[in-house]
Amino acid sequence: VLVGFGNVARRFVRLLEEKRVPLSLEGLDTRVVGIATRRHGRVLSPGGVDAVMLAGRVESGGAVGPDTDTAGTAATFIREAARRCAAAARQHRLVVVETTTLDIARGQPAIRHVRAALAGGAHVITANKGPVAFAYRALAQAATRADRSFLFEGAVMDGIPIFNLARETLPAATITGFRGVVNSTTNYILTSMENGETFDAALASMQRAGIAEADASFDVDGWDAAAKTAALANVLLGARLTPAGVEREGIRDITADRLDTARAGGRRIKLVASAERSGRQVRARVAPMELPSDDLLAGLDGQQNAIIVQTDVLGEFAVVQRGSGLTQTAYALLADLITVGRRMQRGSAPRRWRR
Amino acid sequence: VLVGFGNVARRFVRLLEEKRVPLSLEGLDTRVVGIATRRHGRVLSPGGVDAVMLAGRVESGGAVGPDTDTAGTAATFIREAARRCAAAARQHRLVVVETTTLDIARGQPAIRHVRAALAGGAHVITANKGPVAFAYRALAQAATRADRSFLFEGAVMDGIPIFNLARETLPAATITGFRGVVNSTTNYILTSMENGETFDAALASMQRAGIAEADASFDVDGWDAAAKTAALANVLLGARLTPAGVEREGIRDITADRLDTARAGGRRIKLVASAERSGRQVRARVAPMELPSDDLLAGLDGQQNAIIVQTDVLGEFAVVQRGSGLTQTAYALLADLITVGRRMQRGSAPRRWRR
Repeated sequence: VLVGFGNVARRFVRLLEEKRVPLSLEGLDTRVVGIATRRHGRVLSPGGVDAVMLAGRVESGGAVGPDTDTAGTAATFIREAARRCAAAARQHRLVVVETTTLDIARGQPAIRHVRAALAGGAHVITANKGPVAFAYRALAQAATRADRSFLFEGAVMDGIPIFNLARETLPAATITGFRGVVNSTTNYILTSMENGETFDAALASMQRAGIAEADASFDVDGWDAAAKTAALANVLLGARLTPAGVEREGIRDITADRLDTARAGGRRIKLVASAERSGRQVRARVAPMELPSDDLLAGLDGQQNAIIVQTDVLGEFAVVQRGSGLTQTAYALLADLITVGRRMQRGSAPRRWRR
Repeated sequence: VLVGFGNVARRFVRLLEEKRVPLSLEGLDTRVVGIATRRHGRVLSPGGVDAVMLAGRVESGGAVGPDTDTAGTAATFIREAARRCAAAARQHRLVVVETTTLDIARGQPAIRHVRAALAGGAHVITANKGPVAFAYRALAQAATRADRSFLFEGAVMDGIPIFNLARETLPAATITGFRGVVNSTTNYILTSMENGETFDAALASMQRAGIAEADASFDVDGWDAAAKTAALANVLLGARLTPAGVEREGIRDITADRLDTARAGGRRIKLVASAERSGRQVRARVAPMELPSDDLLAGLDGQQNAIIVQTDVLGEFAVVQRGSGLTQTAYALLADLITVGRRMQRGSAPRRWRR
């Protein structure tokens, strides 16, 4: 069941087709049974719909189905889908793929969608950072109680594995902190300003490319980075943060002069997201930092992101995202879907976080 | 059963104690039942031995047991251990932890040890790159036939997850190639030479620190990097390479002048390991490369390593190792041990590589 049918979800349904062979090697066969859009109607058919065809139709301005009455909320749609696919849900075969537009101030409506899906016996996969930034612990507990999965690999680094990496590849290690560059728009603006462009021109270029949020404040005042920082801190460090609990300073006060002065001293300014344990608390922060040029984060140009993970037994290591785009985010959903499938085949309950 | 009881294995047995609580949360309880050393005797006791105490004894020049007759090979010892622990082996509870000194020209005796362990019904975990560089496919097949695990996370990047990352977090993605800096000694030498030290002084300092191989040729002529490249290509790209099949050029011809000239042009010279698919073949190479200063690999100083992974759906991403040491390598063994335990709990056969 696809809730949200924007660029990411439409790339995802095409990726399902392109990856049919590897999916079948994983023992997975998939069927799209419902699509809820914001402005292009809804369709629900337990026998399956042709999602790729419908993606094309939406791109030509059409609707996904005759039902263009979108007065009911998407949460209502999810409940209806779970009712109509109750047998699949009981057999743990129903998955809600959540990609709606996020209200970054409240994390909604994505959080409601996750709750409705779990309540209906569906697993939930989302590329939205809202649920994990605002309500990770409650939703993870709800998923455990429902014996369903709640996965969100695409929420922070597009498809580059960071949550799956921590869950699957660092057993018995303790993550003690992280720092990183996690917002592409601000990194692009800072790099462009170093190259002589103005703040406004660089921002406009990112908005034209569809990468910056329409409301510039989300990016340049650090809200997007704060939401990602809260998400990472909640999952990797066991914090109980929301974005408002992250100390936050954006890049509005960074002038070309300040960038030049830093650069003349062999340093670069980056918007750095970080968090660390401090006793039983987790302190999280987003702020522009002057970094020496040999710092890994200083070397990130344009839209590159990176997270440096600090651990007890492995020291520091970094994961660097060198490309980003729709396919990456769509792949995050696919990877999460396969994780759901692997867990089903193991017959195991989702592994609980033990951090 | 510990085969090899050098620095890494002794750190590993201490890590088993330090991580007893997280191990028990994974449902794992461990017992060392046998230790084979090269010069400090052997001990085999299915009831368990005090490995931490024995580590201390070896460090004081003592032996691990009264049996100092090491005329039989370690493979004989493994067979004997499997026979004496046959019930545990039948129940998939016997694990051989292989950390012997590698003959980098042939990958032995580690390959024989892996075979003996699998034949005896034991899982095998190794920090040795020999088996995976010289005989990955055959050993993976032997493990599949024996329904046992063959794991080697520590072979290339100490404990930084690269093999586990590819296996667990990139489902349905295709890795198309990689490039990286994987040999610490040569990277340290090149960095030191840039800072005015001589080749010989830098090499001597790495040998004193126990990081360079005693035979300098293994590092500076690119053999170590070629073995790691073969290991990565075999596992990530499905190649059938041995180190001799990797095009190889070391750093002996890199002069201070050449480094200076590169640096004056804003470039740095690194020993780069790379491989890529080319039709049905995989072409792998180790060679010094002049890199622009904004290349992620150019920024790696001293002992930092990194691998940039190229994929079909995720573009490029990089994993950067920022610290290395005994604890990291020992942790790789621990992580592999937990993977064995998780697989046992799932009651599942090891997941097969599908690349």
